[in-house]
Amino acid sequence: MTARLLTELSAPAIADALGPDSVLVLPTGAIEQHGPHLPVATDLITAQSMAERAVAEFGEELDLWLLPPLAYTKSNEHHWSCGTFWLSAQTLMSVLHDLGSSITKTPARRLAFLNGHGGNSALLQVAARDLRIAYGLRTFTMHPSLPADHGGKSPESELGLGIHGGHEETSLMLHLRPELVDMEQAQRWVPEQLTEYRHVRFGGSVSFGWTSDDFGPDGVIGDASTATAEHGKEKAEAMLTYLGEAFAEVARFDPGPRA
Amino acid sequence: MTARLLTELSAPAIADALGPDSVLVLPTGAIEQHGPHLPVATDLITAQSMAERAVAEFGEELDLWLLPPLAYTKSNEHHWSCGTFWLSAQTLMSVLHDLGSSITKTPARRLAFLNGHGGNSALLQVAARDLRIAYGLRTFTMHPSLPADHGGKSPESELGLGIHGGHEETSLMLHLRPELVDMEQAQRWVPEQLTEYRHVRFGGSVSFGWTSDDFGPDGVIGDASTATAEHGKEKAEAMLTYLGEAFAEVARFDPGPRA
Amino acid sequence: MTARLLTELSAPAIADALGPDSVLVLPTGAIEQHGPHLPVATDLITAQSMAERAVAEFGEELDLWLLPPLAYTKSNEHHWSCGTFWLSAQTLMSVLHDLGSSITKTPARRLAFLNGHGGNSALLQVAARDLRIAYGLRTFTMHPSLPADHGGKSPESELGLGIHGGHEETSLMLHLRPELVDMEQAQRWVPEQLTEYRHVRFGGSVSFGWTSDDFGPDGVIGDASTATAEHGKEKAEAMLTYLGEAFAEVARFDPGPRA
Amino acid sequence: MTARLLTELSAPAIADALGPDSVLVLPTGAIEQHGPHLPVATDLITAQSMAERAVAEFGEELDLWLLPPLAYTKSNEHHWSCGTFWLSAQTLMSVLHDLGSSITKTPARRLAFLNGHGGNSALLQVAARDLRIAYGLRTFTMHPSLPADHGGKSPESELGLGIHGGHEETSLMLHLRPELVDMEQAQRWVPEQLTEYRHVRFGGSVSFGWTSDDFGPDGVIGDASTATAEHGKEKAEAMLTYLGEAFAEVARFDPGPRA
Amino acid sequence: MTARLLTELSAPAIADALGPDSVLVLPTGAIEQHGPHLPVATDLITAQSMAERAVAEFGEELDLWLLPPLAYTKSNEHHWSCGTFWLSAQTLMSVLHDLGSSITKTPARRLAFLNGHGGNSALLQVAARDLRIAYGLRTFTMHPSLPADHGGKSPESELGLGIHGGHEETSLMLHLRPELVDMEQAQRWVPEQLTEYRHVRFGGSVSFGWTSDDFGPDGVIGDASTATAEHGKEKAEAMLTYLGEAFAEVARFDPGPRA
Amino acid sequence: MTARLLTELSAPAIADALGPDSVLVLPTGAIEQHGPHLPVATDLITAQSMAERAVAEFGEELDLWLLPPLAYTKSNEHHWSCGTFWLSAQTLMSVLHDLGSSITKTPARRLAFLNGHGGNSALLQVAARDLRIAYGLRTFTMHPSLPADHGGKSPESELGLGIHGGHEETSLMLHLRPELVDMEQAQRWVPEQLTEYRHVRFGGSVSFGWTSDDFGPDGVIGDASTATAEHGKEKAEAMLTYLGEAFAEVARFDPGPRA
Repeated sequence: MTARLLTELSAPAIADALGPDSVLVLPTGAIEQHGPHLPVATDLITAQSMAERAVAEFGEELDLWLLPPLAYTKSNEHHWSCGTFWLSAQTLMSVLHDLGSSITKTPARRLAFLNGHGGNSALLQVAARDLRIAYGLRTFTMHPSLPADHGGKSPESELGLGIHGGHEETSLMLHLRPELVDMEQAQRWVPEQLTEYRHVRFGGSVSFGWTSDDFGPDGVIGDASTATAEHGKEKAEAMLTYLGEAFAEVARFDPGPRA
Repeated sequence: MTARLLTELSAPAIADALGPDSVLVLPTGAIEQHGPHLPVATDLITAQSMAERAVAEFGEELDLWLLPPLAYTKSNEHHWSCGTFWLSAQTLMSVLHDLGSSITKTPARRLAFLNGHGGNSALLQVAARDLRIAYGLRTFTMHPSLPADHGGKSPESELGLGIHGGHEETSLMLHLRPELVDMEQAQRWVPEQLTEYRHVRFGGSVSFGWTSDDFGPDGVIGDASTATAEHGKEKAEAMLTYLGEAFAEVARFDPGPRA
Repeated sequence: MTARLLTELSAPAIADALGPDSVLVLPTGAIEQHGPHLPVATDLITAQSMAERAVAEFGEELDLWLLPPLAYTKSNEHHWSCGTFWLSAQTLMSVLHDLGSSITKTPARRLAFLNGHGGNSALLQVAARDLRIAYGLRTFTMHPSLPADHGGKSPESELGLGIHGGHEETSLMLHLRPELVDMEQAQRWVPEQLTEYRHVRFGGSVSFGWTSDDFGPDGVIGDASTATAEHGKEKAEAMLTYLGEAFAEVARFDPGPRA
Repeated sequence: MTARLLTELSAPAIADALGPDSVLVLPTGAIEQHGPHLPVATDLITAQSMAERAVAEFGEELDLWLLPPLAYTKSNEHHWSCGTFWLSAQTLMSVLHDLGSSITKTPARRLAFLNGHGGNSALLQVAARDLRIAYGLRTFTMHPSLPADHGGKSPESELGLGIHGGHEETSLMLHLRPELVDMEQAQRWVPEQLTEYRHVRFGGSVSFGWTSDDFGPDGVIGDASTATAEHGKEKAEAMLTYLGEAFAEVARFDPGPRA
Repeated sequence: MTARLLTELSAPAIADALGPDSVLVLPTGAIEQHGPHLPVATDLITAQSMAERAVAEFGEELDLWLLPPLAYTKSNEHHWSCGTFWLSAQTLMSVLHDLGSSITKTPARRLAFLNGHGGNSALLQVAARDLRIAYGLRTFTMHPSLPADHGGKSPESELGLGIHGGHEETSLMLHLRPELVDMEQAQRWVPEQLTEYRHVRFGGSVSFGWTSDDFGPDGVIGDASTATAEHGKEKAEAMLTYLGEAFAEVARFDPGPRA
Repeated sequence: MTARLLTELSAPAIADALGPDSVLVLPTGAIEQHGPHLPVATDLITAQSMAERAVAEFGEELDLWLLPPLAYTKSNEHHWSCGTFWLSAQTLMSVLHDLGSSITKTPARRLAFLNGHGGNSALLQVAARDLRIAYGLRTFTMHPSLPADHGGKSPESELGLGIHGGHEETSLMLHLRPELVDMEQAQRWVPEQLTEYRHVRFGGSVSFGWTSDDFGPDGVIGDASTATAEHGKEKAEAMLTYLGEAFAEVARFDPGPRA
């Protein structure tokens, strides 16, 4: 049994277990090309693993409950590649609406997307508001770790450009699922030309519509060659610590005026 | 590693591994109320478990590859109950279209839905044709075992009405995931009034639009009280044998005239 | 006047005539290629004729009312052919939803699809449930006769493959509208190669997504050469008998627990 | 056999019979309340009858072919009444798109909507352009007779307001289907208050969104009490003459510059 | 400040200013090719200018309030040309629905489309009814001047065919925004071949689906060469007079029976 | 004439004026409640004014062209208030798709959203990618100034919470359109309770679905009482300088590998 996997309970048990401040945690992964060294399920594995760990460690205290992940999400920046399985914006929005509607039949009123794929972030923010309004849920969009284009960190050799399949992600996979990583294929794929721009950049003040083959034929954006399982382990631990703090806020978040 | 889980390969490895006769196996489960004795993930667990076993046993010979399952599908016959998480017909159709489109970027041209939830069957048949036409795929809709309303068997005590949470499904879960079954809650819930009808019945010549609370307040349709792990084990073995035969046909199916 | 054609009444007369147990009968035909010997309206003619006969004979006793048929439905298995006029799954679903919604303004709460086209069956089953839930209607999906892939019979020479334009359908048309049948063009078109498969077959445990040109260039699947008006007449009479029994159940069907 | 009903031909016969200048005639009726004296199918009967007559009389000369009518269309101005069966704008537009797409598989490239229901006119005009562009068809929107709000005539007693169930329509039905008309229920229902407005009126320079219960509880707008079968006969003959002229133009219409 | 531009008020001020009989005036323009002599914004400029003038002159008396215009609307008859920016029928309908829904949060219940583009007229009529029903608004579709295919006038040299970029429209632009008109490019573009038809014509009893390149390569339909600013000025004055009368009716229109 | 307003050109002039590196600038405003002191068009005014200034100053050098703004966008965080006019996510996405498609008929291939409303940002990012893929455009999402929840600044008294109608926005409006600002109504509306959270906050690592009445009844989030026209002027100048730099990058942005 996975700890506190909601769907391993019976329907009446769910009705008993949940209350309005229970937090349903929906991991959102992706199935998309991640270069020759990483599996296409990398983002699914990351989101699901970290969600499981976080719910196992903090779930009882914070009333967190895990939902089965969404494996297939919005990966059209990789649409050109074999191995990418993706939903359109409209389809994914419909999926999230339907799940939001389903939640209204449970006592729970808090839903957190634990998102492992940067390409989902904007759409999840749109959905978070729309589900807030349509179904009266408190909704949250979280990332187990922030990618470089969301304000996260990447090593100097990546020039701030490590957002897909690079040092951080590869290290994490070396820790989580080393048997799925082929370090012999790992290279430094850093689109240095992007450093010419100060405003138009990943996480910059001007965002831009891109596909992962805009920068070159490889589809990876980052330096995988420097990844280590040790760094992955440290990163996973830091992520877990962060998720504990973040979920603590999610579990008690109340935006209204204090009495 | 799950055997032949396609998404554990890298994108280039997928391009190498697949050919036009490779069969992609998509388990379609459901998250829906299954009475007080079974988890809401029962159909997901069944579909995914049987798919994993079948691909593990027959995959190499028949070139089968497993895809991550669809956990959330069309369960609106249980929409009234806490614990049911469902997609509308339109949403699920869109999901299947998007996956079908994604497959065209791989070399594979055979897609089999391995469906663990009777409420999906009709929609999957619609989708199978539509994806056949829209994306040029050979598509198949399979069930690890046929429910009573699809031509399958159920014990005499169920009067042919064991279609949800009854003897067969409970036995199978006692074999697959006994720790998730609460036999103390298992009862006989057989809507005997339905035997008044000869044509309008589950699997009859006249089908009817129903929800699982049409027959009474319990939401189970069948006799769970007689379920045993032994019967579940025999059933699982028979299912596996059947899936081997069925996949052998799926893998070589060619409807065209012989030269 | 067609007997009990609801739409030949005025609006106030409809309000008077109907009650909650009145059954609205919606024939669903198709306009699609049926080979060189049958008109493209074959399924429309069949569904409408049998519906008219059944309502004329049993309508007063069972409170049945006829609706104008849907001529254009889901025939995309014949999309490749001139003469096929079809609606997409989404369009047809929308049409059925709109009609379901309209019915809520009448006193009637029972709606039966009398379906003459096998390609509609799965979608009608999806719609039957969705209209049950959305509009509170009791919904039923019926066939004047079951095609071979729905459990019906076909003569030995068809090897169980007579599902479109073959012996049964041609015979029926020779009875109903002989002037529209060209027996000089009638041949035996039986895709014998399909007998190689035990599970993947019409009406088998594994359904498959097919178009009618998958089996050869003719678009007919069955043996039209053996058709006779006499067999058609017998078939029509048997169908009528069957419909009388089936509608008797539809008219009183109550799935709820007996008091 | 209805004269030149296209769907009574086989698929190969259709391919032979049609050419690019063949005109497919699609009657668009309606099923909607028409007061206590007329059947809800009034517009369907009118459109279909006049289409059949016109195609019978002019079809061979002008290469006209009849299609099965659309019975259910956009009648939401009568949505409040029992007996109105209607499709939403989006649904009807989808139906028309799907039929337009289907026509591209035939040799014909001219499609005429013969519209019996004023509430469809605007939508049909939108569709006519959209199908022109999407499918390369020459499309036409015709009315067997123009209602008063489309520039047609009505007797003085109707004050220009006879647009639904009044003198003209009732007379026509007394001619076409007298057994369906109940003249004992026929009254003068003229919303005289509308004559206060010069610009905002039926067919005026300012159109307005109305439902048929905006003007009073009766749902009829016109004077049915004065209707006669004789006037209906004259009207039908004039309509037929008009349709002959109009179809002659439709059949040869070419907007392009002359060589 | 534009006179009575609603959106220049604060939210509480809007709640104070409006009552149920306030008329919200939504100019609907278009961005579409208008030949070599007129800007692509011609219809937007016309609709917005006339709306501003009308609201400035009659707004206080009649309780009219201006909304920001819809610049981009349904111009697909010009889809072939650079410079046309258009919304599909479905998109524009959705926009109008969303605005209609938004209006329900204000006290106002009257909405007038002031339409400067003939290609919108039919869709706006559909929308006017649908918004009437969905949101309980009184809705009106108005034109600052009627184009020739809506019953308006055009000079003899245009043979009744001046519907896009011809004498009237060019004259009006010479008055409103002379610096945007290039009379050196203005020609007579009259598709004389259309006079061969009596019924199938602009504004005729048979409408037809056309694109503006059906008549020749120029995309203008009318005689621009005769346009003058003086005529434009007279026309604008006449339009303003007309709008005053029309809005006076819109502001007090009540279709219900008088007490 | 507004400088370089594309739609003031004729269609042939647009074809001449634009090249593949021309940047089409689409201001995206909003019509939404902004408290009692600011007009509901605040975001529209801001986006349009700054776009006009930037195009006037940098347009010739950088080949920028202005499009008419989208006034109505996604403001559902203010849906509860009179004066908010908003489009659903799906509607706005459709509008952007239709405009993207229209652009393909021009020579231009760069499209920049100049967004004045934070509630649009996430959706515009989704659209930017989708239009990149569907229409081959280089797309950019820019803000004339970044709001506090997008990484922008706000004065200390706002505690980092000045995101709607506060110091910055009010100051800017005092500079741009002082006659529309009512400083007598301006107050400090700062939801201090939000400072209890470190991760779940505007612009924080955990975003949340909110509506503007979640924080209290006022609908403003920030301190308007400290706003000054001087600060607004300085801000506008800084914004203009920033836009010059940002557009310079947008105009030459090339993500591909250098030769």
